[in-house]
Amino acid sequence: MWIVCADLEGVFVPEIWVNVALKTGIEELKLTTRDIKDYDQLMRYRLEILDKHNLKLQDIQAVINTLDPLPGALEFIREIRQATRFAIVSDTFVEFAQPLMDKLENPFLLCHNLETDSTGRIVNYHLRQSDPKRKTVQAFKSLMYNVVAFGDSYNDVTMIAEADKGILFCPPDNVKADFPQYPVVNDLASLKQQLLSIVK
Amino acid sequence: MWIVCADLEGVFVPEIWVNVALKTGIEELKLTTRDIKDYDQLMRYRLEILDKHNLKLQDIQAVINTLDPLPGALEFIREIRQATRFAIVSDTFVEFAQPLMDKLENPFLLCHNLETDSTGRIVNYHLRQSDPKRKTVQAFKSLMYNVVAFGDSYNDVTMIAEADKGILFCPPDNVKADFPQYPVVNDLASLKQQLLSIVK
Repeated sequence: MWIVCADLEGVFVPEIWVNVALKTGIEELKLTTRDIKDYDQLMRYRLEILDKHNLKLQDIQAVINTLDPLPGALEFIREIRQATRFAIVSDTFVEFAQPLMDKLENPFLLCHNLETDSTGRIVNYHLRQSDPKRKTVQAFKSLMYNVVAFGDSYNDVTMIAEADKGILFCPPDNVKADFPQYPVVNDLASLKQQLLSIVK
Repeated sequence: MWIVCADLEGVFVPEIWVNVALKTGIEELKLTTRDIKDYDQLMRYRLEILDKHNLKLQDIQAVINTLDPLPGALEFIREIRQATRFAIVSDTFVEFAQPLMDKLENPFLLCHNLETDSTGRIVNYHLRQSDPKRKTVQAFKSLMYNVVAFGDSYNDVTMIAEADKGILFCPPDNVKADFPQYPVVNDLASLKQQLLSIVK
């Protein structure tokens, strides 16, 4: 019995912060962990910027609601959910993901969450736990499932390493170079075929 | 952050073996753990009966495909999946559940599985692990989720006990009498309201 653990951004939906920056035209929101290495510092900076522009959760959700899942994502998810267990394991926040999850017919999503006040101002963020992707795979293994995991980036690697089978999906060159031990798949159709042959 | 863990049979779909017995007219398939206490003995007997009638997995699935989810189940599941994490934790077999899961838009289902030969003859059954419902709640708690669990029968009680909040849904009188410590809810609309107020 298998469970498929999938990354979200870059696989099924576009990168959320990058696109919020593009759609709102707020340059400062384009910074990523490449610019500010410390994630907590980066998130506090982002929340400050939202405050400065008086952007509430509902405003960001309205922006995210103008985004669409990546081509083929919904069909992929429908077919995999029909064939096996399917969980999305993401480092995004559930409040940001929700407009896109609605468009993907609400697959099972494990991620982080935001804290808002009564006006919708985002006052804090809460990471579910440290190394959540690896721990999710461990939890499913404790339920006697085999796990196949895939993602595109550094934050997916502990999940991929912990899984019985791991796949890099459309990784950038640096990720591919740093983890040559994992097979690389570059399109959803091929990925679907590989997953179906594993879980059958 | 909450996860809802739900039982399947008697909550969202009718009891599968009972209905297979009714639809096929095979009296011997009506036996339950009330008649043969040992579950392994009961399952081996059921598989023998299927063999005797030359019923393959595909025949049973065709019968199950004539069943429908219980009234309101699909709407309930759609709304809960939109509002929070939702997992069905069942003691059925995935191959039996699948026709009904398709009708419920394939929510996340953790259960057991059957082993078939190349003709579809069911040669064995595999329980995922012992006490799987309790262990599923423990696994989600290890991921720092709070869990609210509900079900209708004895096999749900360890899941309900392990959860942060547990509810008996439409329990028979003996279950209700044996576990007076758990709140009882008798319709999906009230259950949905309670769940939404817990996870909000």
